[in-house]
Amino acid sequence: MSARLKLGMVGGGQGAFIGGVHRIAARIDGQWDLVAGALSSNPDRARASAADLGIAPDRAYADFAEMARVEAAREDGIDAVAIVTPNHMHAAPAIAFLNAGIHVICDKPLAASLEDAEAIAKAAANSSARFILTHNYTAYPLIRQAREMVAAGELGEIRLVQVEYAQDWLAEDTSNKQADWRTDPARSGAGGAVGDIGTHAFNLAGFVTGLRAEELAAELTAFVPGRRVDDNVNVMLRYPGGARGMLWASQVAIGNENALRLRVYGSTGGLDWEQETPNIMRFTRFGQPTQLLTRGGAGATLEGQANLRTPAGHPEGYLEGFATLYAEAARMIREGAPAGANLPGIADGLAGMRFIAASIASSRENGVWKPL
Amino acid sequence: MSARLKLGMVGGGQGAFIGGVHRIAARIDGQWDLVAGALSSNPDRARASAADLGIAPDRAYADFAEMARVEAAREDGIDAVAIVTPNHMHAAPAIAFLNAGIHVICDKPLAASLEDAEAIAKAAANSSARFILTHNYTAYPLIRQAREMVAAGELGEIRLVQVEYAQDWLAEDTSNKQADWRTDPARSGAGGAVGDIGTHAFNLAGFVTGLRAEELAAELTAFVPGRRVDDNVNVMLRYPGGARGMLWASQVAIGNENALRLRVYGSTGGLDWEQETPNIMRFTRFGQPTQLLTRGGAGATLEGQANLRTPAGHPEGYLEGFATLYAEAARMIREGAPAGANLPGIADGLAGMRFIAASIASSRENGVWKPL
Amino acid sequence: MSARLKLGMVGGGQGAFIGGVHRIAARIDGQWDLVAGALSSNPDRARASAADLGIAPDRAYADFAEMARVEAAREDGIDAVAIVTPNHMHAAPAIAFLNAGIHVICDKPLAASLEDAEAIAKAAANSSARFILTHNYTAYPLIRQAREMVAAGELGEIRLVQVEYAQDWLAEDTSNKQADWRTDPARSGAGGAVGDIGTHAFNLAGFVTGLRAEELAAELTAFVPGRRVDDNVNVMLRYPGGARGMLWASQVAIGNENALRLRVYGSTGGLDWEQETPNIMRFTRFGQPTQLLTRGGAGATLEGQANLRTPAGHPEGYLEGFATLYAEAARMIREGAPAGANLPGIADGLAGMRFIAASIASSRENGVWKPL
Amino acid sequence: MSARLKLGMVGGGQGAFIGGVHRIAARIDGQWDLVAGALSSNPDRARASAADLGIAPDRAYADFAEMARVEAAREDGIDAVAIVTPNHMHAAPAIAFLNAGIHVICDKPLAASLEDAEAIAKAAANSSARFILTHNYTAYPLIRQAREMVAAGELGEIRLVQVEYAQDWLAEDTSNKQADWRTDPARSGAGGAVGDIGTHAFNLAGFVTGLRAEELAAELTAFVPGRRVDDNVNVMLRYPGGARGMLWASQVAIGNENALRLRVYGSTGGLDWEQETPNIMRFTRFGQPTQLLTRGGAGATLEGQANLRTPAGHPEGYLEGFATLYAEAARMIREGAPAGANLPGIADGLAGMRFIAASIASSRENGVWKPL
Repeated sequence: MSARLKLGMVGGGQGAFIGGVHRIAARIDGQWDLVAGALSSNPDRARASAADLGIAPDRAYADFAEMARVEAAREDGIDAVAIVTPNHMHAAPAIAFLNAGIHVICDKPLAASLEDAEAIAKAAANSSARFILTHNYTAYPLIRQAREMVAAGELGEIRLVQVEYAQDWLAEDTSNKQADWRTDPARSGAGGAVGDIGTHAFNLAGFVTGLRAEELAAELTAFVPGRRVDDNVNVMLRYPGGARGMLWASQVAIGNENALRLRVYGSTGGLDWEQETPNIMRFTRFGQPTQLLTRGGAGATLEGQANLRTPAGHPEGYLEGFATLYAEAARMIREGAPAGANLPGIADGLAGMRFIAASIASSRENGVWKPL
Repeated sequence: MSARLKLGMVGGGQGAFIGGVHRIAARIDGQWDLVAGALSSNPDRARASAADLGIAPDRAYADFAEMARVEAAREDGIDAVAIVTPNHMHAAPAIAFLNAGIHVICDKPLAASLEDAEAIAKAAANSSARFILTHNYTAYPLIRQAREMVAAGELGEIRLVQVEYAQDWLAEDTSNKQADWRTDPARSGAGGAVGDIGTHAFNLAGFVTGLRAEELAAELTAFVPGRRVDDNVNVMLRYPGGARGMLWASQVAIGNENALRLRVYGSTGGLDWEQETPNIMRFTRFGQPTQLLTRGGAGATLEGQANLRTPAGHPEGYLEGFATLYAEAARMIREGAPAGANLPGIADGLAGMRFIAASIASSRENGVWKPL
Repeated sequence: MSARLKLGMVGGGQGAFIGGVHRIAARIDGQWDLVAGALSSNPDRARASAADLGIAPDRAYADFAEMARVEAAREDGIDAVAIVTPNHMHAAPAIAFLNAGIHVICDKPLAASLEDAEAIAKAAANSSARFILTHNYTAYPLIRQAREMVAAGELGEIRLVQVEYAQDWLAEDTSNKQADWRTDPARSGAGGAVGDIGTHAFNLAGFVTGLRAEELAAELTAFVPGRRVDDNVNVMLRYPGGARGMLWASQVAIGNENALRLRVYGSTGGLDWEQETPNIMRFTRFGQPTQLLTRGGAGATLEGQANLRTPAGHPEGYLEGFATLYAEAARMIREGAPAGANLPGIADGLAGMRFIAASIASSRENGVWKPL
Repeated sequence: MSARLKLGMVGGGQGAFIGGVHRIAARIDGQWDLVAGALSSNPDRARASAADLGIAPDRAYADFAEMARVEAAREDGIDAVAIVTPNHMHAAPAIAFLNAGIHVICDKPLAASLEDAEAIAKAAANSSARFILTHNYTAYPLIRQAREMVAAGELGEIRLVQVEYAQDWLAEDTSNKQADWRTDPARSGAGGAVGDIGTHAFNLAGFVTGLRAEELAAELTAFVPGRRVDDNVNVMLRYPGGARGMLWASQVAIGNENALRLRVYGSTGGLDWEQETPNIMRFTRFGQPTQLLTRGGAGATLEGQANLRTPAGHPEGYLEGFATLYAEAARMIREGAPAGANLPGIADGLAGMRFIAASIASSRENGVWKPL
């Protein structure tokens, strides 16, 4: 094994959620060391958070722009930066690090506005560095296997996509650090559930089917009194070749914790996968009994076996899927592009932003179909 | 127990499916004897089918009109008739028996056209007899319980309805008695899946929530080459008071046998029920662990206990739910209207027909919202 | 169809449980009419119960012996009698009807004592009539299919049997008609759970595997203070050919309603079935994905398709399984022995009694292995 | 955060399984750096494996005794050593490191023989260092919660333990590195399945109930021709206070990957948990609906919330449970004994060895009850 790669982080200071997830994900496979950070826009919290994480004081930055400049100049500068700020704070650091030639691993959705998203895309196009968007659900082994099975024609021609992402944590008017920024249009963007989780669902469907939706009709609703963004989104989708889809994302569906589910039906077979039990997937060939495919179990495909840390029956979860993105990013940095073939990137991010924008537009115009 | 009631049947001769179901349902609780029938439009088959079923030769009719006339005149004439013909053959016999003052128990959907449906409704309005539509899924004990719980406010204000009915038996171009008439617009009506199973889903959602949808936007698709009616339908729904819904019905979703599922989410709770495991229902109060409610088990409500034949843990199924309709019909005939309060009738039938018509119309106009 | 067969019933008057189940089971397939009964040892209740059930007054007997005599003499006498009394009241009526040449359909376990059981066996051996024991769980379509699959070698050589039957309704010291006689050694026999539900589990394992256990070691426990019979039984089993088994039956396992489960493992495959979701069975060939076999679904065997009333996905349950015993009894009476090949009978009853006796004996001797 | 602790490893070189698991577990929470190792008894492989893992050449030992001596003497010597060799190679290194005052984190079962186990225990008793046995399944958050619930009396008085651990990977006569040593009595000990997975099941039951079994009766079987150790074990257990248990461990139960399941029933409640879906647990209070408790979800207890890395609905798995042992070991080393209160140790190891020995002895003596 070569020496570990060096990771920096923007955002993710004390009290944040997704920053901690990225750090665990980066550690799991032993490919990364976190060595630098601009962990908070508050200098005191930035310093304290860095100390907590064992980052050397001289690499605890109060400002991401300075961090990009200094790290790019260091002999031992970071190989990549993880951007784990709220959505409206993705663009500026992403562009700064891309411009500095440092790889960017950015949380989703891409940005809080289409303008910001396009600015990132432009920076990525002009940079030698790679931009990776952590649509982590795509990295579950059975999702990789599903994608491979669809591509291999195991389902025949795709007809139907049913994707849903149901949560209930915003079913009442709650206030906490997570809820606050995720329901504030200024920080999360104009979309609420549609951006926060709808983009995951939309991306996952596209990842597995290999189809890019062409049109949608949507209805966004804010059920909780006083909520300024949607907390439920109902969408109908049209895919190339005549496939049809439904997408439902909700943060007020009481009884659901993080219930992302994808079902894909083709002319000869069907697949069914749920994120909360990610080590099992149902697969049916028409006229045959449904099979329970398991992570790394009997019938696992090449992709289904590509990123296993434990044998079948030893459940891997959310963090391991996330870790695979970091492991693949490391491999891609070391070996070049093909090693990162499965990694979601700027195109996925832009597609997600278009999904958000089209959903909002359709909903405002009484559900008229909008191109994507 | 009073003596059994006397049942006649129109349709349901040899080779039919739903006729046999009605007969078992009528037998289960010992309230009915099948004593007369016009079981087939083919006189030979009508006679043979009647003999099979132990119907006396003089009450084996070749013609439903004659049957209505003769039975109405007999001292020991039938109390009710079950109509189990293909959809396009519902209206004529239903009207004949209603006009003869004989109660009608009719399979769904109400008819093959809105015109026929309205003619039935008119006959029902002018008749002393009652019209019952066998939306059998409403009679599962846990569905009755769900309705009662919603009405009692256990879910708070209803926000979301997710209802789906997925099958796969028409995923290829099959030919058999069932497939043939159900995919023939002349016999089943202009709707395919939307009428055959979509109406069940639509009805069930309304039954449980007590809400009548006001508008829908739909996309109907015929995926199988050569199919003349839709085999998949995606619908968005608007309910009074701001509740929103999604309805999916498919006969090409490979891996699904008869997967009717209803989820209802309100401001304080959520429910989740699946027809293939009908003896269990998930119920969650916000902030509390999900509960597994079982048929007749702990926490069963009055309605949930009203029609049990076996204790909890002794699964009842499709036939028992169907039988409850027949038991309640018997009770209603003996005791009068309140005993039949839960029975679906002409209003449900008309709502189902409007659902079909609006879905087709919306789909033809690129998914524009249509009133119901 | 020939005319219906005529059924009598001993026991099953007002307030009983299993009598009602037998009556529904007899009605479902339209093969039987209940025309006579000695429904209670209390003459008033016997009369009232008979009237409730539409039994003519002259065939409402206060005494089963009289009933056997009179019915045997009538031109239109009953074809069979259902015996649904508490266990200690099986032998006398069973023997009376067998001696009268009337077929007996008897609830399980066979009797309250081995002596009684043997007396029944002797009467059965000397009678032209058939004795059927309602081990109803053997009649679930997937259980029939499981038996056929094992016999066909689909699991290879059987190695392991795991069977369990867990309930919780006796977890506290309750008093009601059911609890009272089932925990009274004078009426249920010396075994509690071991007889009431352990025999079902034991019988089911034997039915599916085709193996008759040779030895057992058991520990019976009465957990509820004051209980006079066991409410939990742990058993280890030895089968011919080296197969091994575990059997657990409990009426104090809180959270279980009627959780009978059978798992069978052979040298090349495994099966897993649960009574509370009886329309699905897991089947695994070594090295291949687990398959979900469904009642009447893809991959159904001949036996698995032999007794279906509805298509796959339309759940059948406890009552339909029970009904199959009545339908097969009717067919056997009409067509002779082969038609009843799957029907449990006197041998199963004796095996169950030996299972109870050996379990009690082993438990009293600190778990020593006892032959069966 | 203090600086990371320093970890050494004995065993776990190229081709091993559990060594890699320990390394990931040690990394996940960022508390440990792997800095030294005697990774293989083959010097070349030891060196190569160390290089793979980024261990400095001067700390890549060919011999664990040297490693213990040198590391104990270094200023920057390791804080703890992970022993991940086959069972027969646990005792010598464990004793060496304990004698050197270095904490030991040892894989289970404790040893291949009771003699070895007792030698380790003696060394542990005489050492200032702590001995931790990686019964990793005890560290699942819901298992910790279950233990807390039992201790708090939520189930009442414990009556029944049903624990099982079913796998199928040894259903045929396979040969690979894992299968080879685990079925070789010289390396795994006289027990096969009983030691490899039976000890996990036994330990888990004791951990959750807080009860130490007093007696057992067992039957061990080797089903696969030529197998020299048991591949299936059936056990009955007696606990203090009259509780009774059944334990089943099998490596030939086709269709099971790693199916460890624990059910505990008390006088007022019951629990049910399965390792392959570790983020959910069923809990029933007598007479109330079963609740689905989720990891970190509604109703989570203090222990259930103590080691979460992600919110409810974001599944954690096998590696996170394992990681909790490493995190707690780090905390215990830093803070002292109470921080390690949940960590399994030498007493658990000895209990496991007695369980193996008693099971073998009972089985040899036809299932006689043996004290533990």
